[in-house]
Amino acid sequence: MGNQPPGSPAVGRREDDKQAVRSEHAHDPSRVLALSDGVFAIIMTLLVLEVHVPELSQGQSLTDALRQIWPSLTAFVISFILAGMCWVGHRDLFGLIRQTDRGLVWLNILYLLPLCLLPFAASLLGRYDREPVALRVYGLVLVAIALMRVAIWVYATSRSHLLWRRLDDRQRGAGLGLTIAPVLVYLVAFAVAGLTPTLSLLIFAAVPLVYFLGITGLRLGRMGNREYSDFT
Amino acid sequence: MGNQPPGSPAVGRREDDKQAVRSEHAHDPSRVLALSDGVFAIIMTLLVLEVHVPELSQGQSLTDALRQIWPSLTAFVISFILAGMCWVGHRDLFGLIRQTDRGLVWLNILYLLPLCLLPFAASLLGRYDREPVALRVYGLVLVAIALMRVAIWVYATSRSHLLWRRLDDRQRGAGLGLTIAPVLVYLVAFAVAGLTPTLSLLIFAAVPLVYFLGITGLRLGRMGNREYSDFT
Amino acid sequence: MGNQPPGSPAVGRREDDKQAVRSEHAHDPSRVLALSDGVFAIIMTLLVLEVHVPELSQGQSLTDALRQIWPSLTAFVISFILAGMCWVGHRDLFGLIRQTDRGLVWLNILYLLPLCLLPFAASLLGRYDREPVALRVYGLVLVAIALMRVAIWVYATSRSHLLWRRLDDRQRGAGLGLTIAPVLVYLVAFAVAGLTPTLSLLIFAAVPLVYFLGITGLRLGRMGNREYSDFT
Amino acid sequence: MGNQPPGSPAVGRREDDKQAVRSEHAHDPSRVLALSDGVFAIIMTLLVLEVHVPELSQGQSLTDALRQIWPSLTAFVISFILAGMCWVGHRDLFGLIRQTDRGLVWLNILYLLPLCLLPFAASLLGRYDREPVALRVYGLVLVAIALMRVAIWVYATSRSHLLWRRLDDRQRGAGLGLTIAPVLVYLVAFAVAGLTPTLSLLIFAAVPLVYFLGITGLRLGRMGNREYSDFT
Repeated sequence: MGNQPPGSPAVGRREDDKQAVRSEHAHDPSRVLALSDGVFAIIMTLLVLEVHVPELSQGQSLTDALRQIWPSLTAFVISFILAGMCWVGHRDLFGLIRQTDRGLVWLNILYLLPLCLLPFAASLLGRYDREPVALRVYGLVLVAIALMRVAIWVYATSRSHLLWRRLDDRQRGAGLGLTIAPVLVYLVAFAVAGLTPTLSLLIFAAVPLVYFLGITGLRLGRMGNREYSDFT
Repeated sequence: MGNQPPGSPAVGRREDDKQAVRSEHAHDPSRVLALSDGVFAIIMTLLVLEVHVPELSQGQSLTDALRQIWPSLTAFVISFILAGMCWVGHRDLFGLIRQTDRGLVWLNILYLLPLCLLPFAASLLGRYDREPVALRVYGLVLVAIALMRVAIWVYATSRSHLLWRRLDDRQRGAGLGLTIAPVLVYLVAFAVAGLTPTLSLLIFAAVPLVYFLGITGLRLGRMGNREYSDFT
Repeated sequence: MGNQPPGSPAVGRREDDKQAVRSEHAHDPSRVLALSDGVFAIIMTLLVLEVHVPELSQGQSLTDALRQIWPSLTAFVISFILAGMCWVGHRDLFGLIRQTDRGLVWLNILYLLPLCLLPFAASLLGRYDREPVALRVYGLVLVAIALMRVAIWVYATSRSHLLWRRLDDRQRGAGLGLTIAPVLVYLVAFAVAGLTPTLSLLIFAAVPLVYFLGITGLRLGRMGNREYSDFT
Repeated sequence: MGNQPPGSPAVGRREDDKQAVRSEHAHDPSRVLALSDGVFAIIMTLLVLEVHVPELSQGQSLTDALRQIWPSLTAFVISFILAGMCWVGHRDLFGLIRQTDRGLVWLNILYLLPLCLLPFAASLLGRYDREPVALRVYGLVLVAIALMRVAIWVYATSRSHLLWRRLDDRQRGAGLGLTIAPVLVYLVAFAVAGLTPTLSLLIFAAVPLVYFLGITGLRLGRMGNREYSDFT
């Protein structure tokens, strides 16, 4: 894949081809994506599964019982959309990547780690939705996911042999801004959790809206610039 | 993929090819399908997993205890077949699609959201199978899934660059009819849940039959019309 | 794919190619395999997950508590190997299949249905390992899985356009024998569960051994006959 | 794939090609990898899911309750990294493999068996983190996973028709050393669990560090030797 090993000129052309095929297998992102999609699918399913079928207490109607799980349902719908945003972001980022190396593989595993904590944080938020601590845990998990995405962006885009196409400095900067923005938003939601839990909750709920408006604005503003219009 | 960016004439043919490859990666539906198949696999497995191993109470035989989980087992078998129908429908629909864009990716995520609520609704129905509220929740989840499928159908088939092959108006109309039909059926089951819970239950159980008969009739009636005979 | 639609001679060669590509997409087994592999992966993981971390009762050591989950662990290891056998059989069978049709897709979904009941049956057996009812439920689930595999074999091998290569009658007969054998074994285990639970348990535990010896014998006896040596 | 069946000279070239395609399907590792990636994704997700949302007891603040789940969280983060290492090792190993046979398929299933016990062992360790028995169970599961990896390495590398490229004796020996090393480390952690539980815990926590340093050292020492630099 471009950087063939220097040695062994005695080994003929055919051996080189075989090596190239094998090397392509070793650096192929397909299993990294398979693992990630698997984790995302499970996370998204489990998020909503945390909404439990209520046990009816004495003299309680099922309608009342279902009303009680409403905050829990809301927390999980928001988390589902946020997880969907993470997946779309992951897909966009890896859409740029032609091959992986050891660093990228491990950064991706460390990205999946906080992601796997999302159902726990969502469950905590669903049960204790006005508790500052629950909001802080939720915020921290989202910050960690967003930070790992920044790390993958910086790592991958500074190694052009990993990419389908070299990005120029302006493109890298714009992408960095797009990946850092959620880190800042979640940090604000984390910071205000102690003072005004409701504001913190509102920020989490508003992120999908901000995201949709933001990316649409960016697309309109840079019409014809294919790198951005490709972003889903 | 047909619509190359207009700019940068200095960039040569080779760069164009690379861009085309990268663009194909960015719009490739494979990860959308991987995520969806993962979610479907988990949903279908978890549906039946909700059938719990009974704890024997004083003097109760295991046979009696197993008889008690019968309604729960029935609810989950019906839900499994309905989930299977959703998957087959999803596979048919995405069989038409050559590439995805941002809207389609997000419509698919919003399709997976109510789908993830199916195990919850099935569990509710298994425990409270004569309660109108449980039947209504179950119906609503199915309506939401079916509606999102209509949305994907309308969105994708009106953007012919997303398809392997342009559909004519008659084909789009017939497909729309096929995707709207389940919405109406589930709405009826939802509407009658309050008056006659048994009828509502019967409708849910009958949907797979209606589906098999309906699509078979359609196939017989349009023999040789490949678009429909392709539908599984 | 061979059976092009008769009509529309006005549509040129290029349209035919596109249609072939699209048709190939509609009949491609890849999503059927993705769904099945996802279900198998979840089943196998959940089987062993049913082994619960013990809660220590008053004055009980952890060593004693772990000894109590031994039957449960045994039941799940056997079930894991049986699920592995099902997966290997599914892989062998679909290794023959070049394209799917509506019948095959649905037979596969109906194959996955009893498979999803395996963790339930294994959990029942792990908790009530001497109860004839638990053994019967376990046996029935295995019979249902094995029967659906027979159905897929008969359906697929009698439709040569679905296969990579037509099988002759002798090959189809031998394959039928191989797929029917487990049905009979599990039926025996089911039948004797009431009289001698221990024998029933032993049969389930012995099936993997019988399978390994049986298929090895068959491979030795038919050396050079590629259809069988291909079977894993 | 090279070793065409000897018989039937009447069957022409085209039939041979079809057979080659079919044979390639039968030996294609893709479904083995799909199953494995699915299992890894579920294991990694479930590991962290075992961290339960605390129920507040009388007069307890949520902050205190979260402090109680700290050991559990630590155990699961360590297990997640260890599972990530297993996955990276599995990916490296199967990156060498061009086609599978019956033995390899079954060795892989027997590799997945102890892997599926990892969430159980991690849950045990999270609840009883100073109990020698919990540490021994955790160690045994890791030893079993590492041993199965050795078995796959020995089996696959001694059958060069399964590989993309034949390995020489030096390469096989070095790879064997790399796969045996974790077995020994986990055995030590298992052995000292009775005397000094803390040391045992420390070893498990230190393995990721040892791994990162070890493989980096190996890469620096063998710069330019592509077989090793390919390892992630």
